[in-house]
Amino acid sequence: MTTSRQDMMESIEFTKSDAHIAELLGRLHEMADLQALAALAQWDQHTAMPPGAAEVRGHQMATLEGLLHERWTAARMGTLLDELERTSKQANLTAADQGLIRSVRRGYDRMAKLPRSLVEEMARTNAGSIEAWVKARRHNDFASFAPWLQRTLNLQREVADRVGFTETRYDALLDEYEPGLTAHKVENLFAPVREVSTTMLQRIQKSGNTVDASCLRGHFSQSQQLELADKALRGMGYDFTRGQIALSAHPFTTSFGSPFDVRLTVRINEQYLQMSLMAALHEGGHALYEQGSAPTLVRTLVAGGASLGVHESQSRLWENYLGRSEPYWQGQYALVREVFPERFANVDVATFVRALNKVEPSLIRVEADEVTYNLHILIRFELEKALVNGEISVESLPELWHAKYRAYLGIESPTDADGVLQDMHWSGGFGYFPTYTLGNLYAAQIFSKLHKEFPDFDARLASGDTGFVLQWLREHLYAYGAIYLPEELMESVTGEKPDPQYFVRYLTSKFEKIYGL
Amino acid sequence: MTTSRQDMMESIEFTKSDAHIAELLGRLHEMADLQALAALAQWDQHTAMPPGAAEVRGHQMATLEGLLHERWTAARMGTLLDELERTSKQANLTAADQGLIRSVRRGYDRMAKLPRSLVEEMARTNAGSIEAWVKARRHNDFASFAPWLQRTLNLQREVADRVGFTETRYDALLDEYEPGLTAHKVENLFAPVREVSTTMLQRIQKSGNTVDASCLRGHFSQSQQLELADKALRGMGYDFTRGQIALSAHPFTTSFGSPFDVRLTVRINEQYLQMSLMAALHEGGHALYEQGSAPTLVRTLVAGGASLGVHESQSRLWENYLGRSEPYWQGQYALVREVFPERFANVDVATFVRALNKVEPSLIRVEADEVTYNLHILIRFELEKALVNGEISVESLPELWHAKYRAYLGIESPTDADGVLQDMHWSGGFGYFPTYTLGNLYAAQIFSKLHKEFPDFDARLASGDTGFVLQWLREHLYAYGAIYLPEELMESVTGEKPDPQYFVRYLTSKFEKIYGL
Repeated sequence: MTTSRQDMMESIEFTKSDAHIAELLGRLHEMADLQALAALAQWDQHTAMPPGAAEVRGHQMATLEGLLHERWTAARMGTLLDELERTSKQANLTAADQGLIRSVRRGYDRMAKLPRSLVEEMARTNAGSIEAWVKARRHNDFASFAPWLQRTLNLQREVADRVGFTETRYDALLDEYEPGLTAHKVENLFAPVREVSTTMLQRIQKSGNTVDASCLRGHFSQSQQLELADKALRGMGYDFTRGQIALSAHPFTTSFGSPFDVRLTVRINEQYLQMSLMAALHEGGHALYEQGSAPTLVRTLVAGGASLGVHESQSRLWENYLGRSEPYWQGQYALVREVFPERFANVDVATFVRALNKVEPSLIRVEADEVTYNLHILIRFELEKALVNGEISVESLPELWHAKYRAYLGIESPTDADGVLQDMHWSGGFGYFPTYTLGNLYAAQIFSKLHKEFPDFDARLASGDTGFVLQWLREHLYAYGAIYLPEELMESVTGEKPDPQYFVRYLTSKFEKIYGL
Repeated sequence: MTTSRQDMMESIEFTKSDAHIAELLGRLHEMADLQALAALAQWDQHTAMPPGAAEVRGHQMATLEGLLHERWTAARMGTLLDELERTSKQANLTAADQGLIRSVRRGYDRMAKLPRSLVEEMARTNAGSIEAWVKARRHNDFASFAPWLQRTLNLQREVADRVGFTETRYDALLDEYEPGLTAHKVENLFAPVREVSTTMLQRIQKSGNTVDASCLRGHFSQSQQLELADKALRGMGYDFTRGQIALSAHPFTTSFGSPFDVRLTVRINEQYLQMSLMAALHEGGHALYEQGSAPTLVRTLVAGGASLGVHESQSRLWENYLGRSEPYWQGQYALVREVFPERFANVDVATFVRALNKVEPSLIRVEADEVTYNLHILIRFELEKALVNGEISVESLPELWHAKYRAYLGIESPTDADGVLQDMHWSGGFGYFPTYTLGNLYAAQIFSKLHKEFPDFDARLASGDTGFVLQWLREHLYAYGAIYLPEELMESVTGEKPDPQYFVRYLTSKFEKIYGL
């Protein structure tokens, strides 16, 4: 690995002396600026924008997406790509050049199949749908959101039909977020995940053993929770001179020019510390990935993550594999006690970490423990696949949601707000959720690799050092942005093809220990 | 006036059935979206953006300004304007159509003289200069800001030379903010203002009479000051469903689609209540103007203010003519006591209002009393005119600043942070400051008109009613956006041409009373 790593490191440079590469970069710089502004407008909508501005914001988003579409589909973009692909072998281009060409080709081919008017309409619908979702969730009123979801669904079906697919329509949407992913592949990946999750949940429930998580409940003021989130993020190595934390209805991370402006949000429940703290670690993981992009990639559309699955591997790595482990908190627990000295004076670190790992079927995905988490994704996957493939209606969603939660998790939400309305993602489209489980699987494999690389991994974490993890991830993963395809990158990082058995072994061993099975 | 008012009211509609008008509106919608995004990116830079993002933000701003320039100077924009101007008489267009054509013609003619590269360079320089200014002000380090100011100056001089001028280069910059304004006109306007300000200041100082403003000093927490700003803005009629308040190093108001998204900032000094409260009223006045634009003007580039001078007339009207008057606070003082019950329990409203009107030469323009305020502007005007006309150097500014403050106000700042670095505006260019004094003059004239329209003006204010003022201003001024030229609009609102004597009389009578002269 060392040699090929060296090759990769040296290759995060574009051959600006090549006239075609220079021309492509010039085009991408403008497109990246427009995309950054679209991300800024969305960040603003989620963190600050007054509700009365939703319609005019929708127009602004549509204008940006229309301009981006125009640039993606420019005739010269097609001939430029043709010329680059024809000459790329003999031109002695770098791996970064090659990755750039491949990535732009992918975007061009997809965008060329979509009319500008459709892209603009999606942008307008997305802006309106977000506002409608915020209100619907607040008032537990799915009916008011349903027309927006129907519009989104219609648009997404049109996208899928225009993009084309081999097996099912839903595949055309999956592929946008994770190159080459299909419903069939997701089902194969989910089989062992579902098996281990369900089995482990049953073993825990049968054992009668419990975990006391009461230390995470009580009153934790918003300002103190934000202070802890801030400290935890600094502890991970998140750079606030190139970032910022804000509040939103649903936590997310975004970038307006990685690695130079990468921001994240959390949400706060004053009765439950875990929500904001784990959101900070989760979004912090996404943000470290974006902040770790090689600066040479700025304004190219290949800064940031290789795919949503790889992105999620980093949020889950920091949130769960590190952030729900005892060695990590042996090194970081002082932060918690600094912010809440009295609350945690008599809670030792082992108790705190056990609390973070309490397994309990629950309603909200982003707060789920590691055992049940993927069952939430499975439900989303089954529902959105059926929606897109035309097998179920938007109106039937709340009931189907409740039925699946009863079936997979044995619980039912008293409201739709904590049911089908809990996530904002469907305002933006479908095909996104399965990448979460993919991320969990990737993370397990990378976590195992980290332990092989660093035999003293736990001891270093326990000493308070997280920098060695960040440094290794930057060098081996973050720096490359989207130059490599997800599977290439995973193989380069871990030395093996993606393998779900890492997750199966991790989950089994971790929770057997916690629950004394 | 009533009939012509009626005509105007009915005319805030565009003739969308006219093919040329429809085509123009289509072009303006896209341009307005881009301009709104540029304003959003600037708002973000001032209120949230991490410092590490300055360079990449500069590129984003340059991309937006470049696209806007491309649209302004499109060949079709020129022929479309020609066709509209040729046919506008017989086509029976509305006043809104005519104003739109005139406004776009003005922008087109100006923009056609500037190369795209210059516009892009100004955007990049502006973004970098803002960051440099924030740092320089914090560290009282003019030398670190000087190179940025020099770059801005060079670019502004190039703009002026390309735009062209009859008398002095500085006129070409003034005209951008206030159509037709020249240095010569400013000097004529300033003569009586300077005279009355200087005379009144001397009379007050000679009288030995003083005003006790101690009730505004002490400790006022940031959160309570924000609460009061919020209440004061609601009291004025600012609509938070279409707006928002944030903190920034220098207070400002901006819009991303008037009247639907109009935001403002204040800054807080925890030892001095007046700063945030008056900033809220000042920026609130700007914001009411933008929120009062006819909804039909949205996304047309003529929503918002007729000029910076007219805009400033509204900030000053609410801040000073209303917000530093006893009748206003008779109606609103309960808000102050709600937020600071103990502090103001024993301060009666007359004492509070006298404190708000304490006259004292001071260093910071935005905190200056009404008597000395325009002397601050005079200093800026003289300095920036000399800079642009090449009579003084950037390096000489700190010393010249101190010399002028000694000469006009009899004081000297111990630092450049509170001297030449106090305002952010020079990061964006020159020619802006004189519109502040113009705004003061317009405001006095409108204030006089309001008293004529409403014989019970003071009594209604004192009863807590501000809605009648807002309603009248909306109907007579705010709704029209930039359809009319400033002088047309002032004449329509007040029935007279702009006349500085209103200000002279207002200032004399108000401060004779307060200081018992």
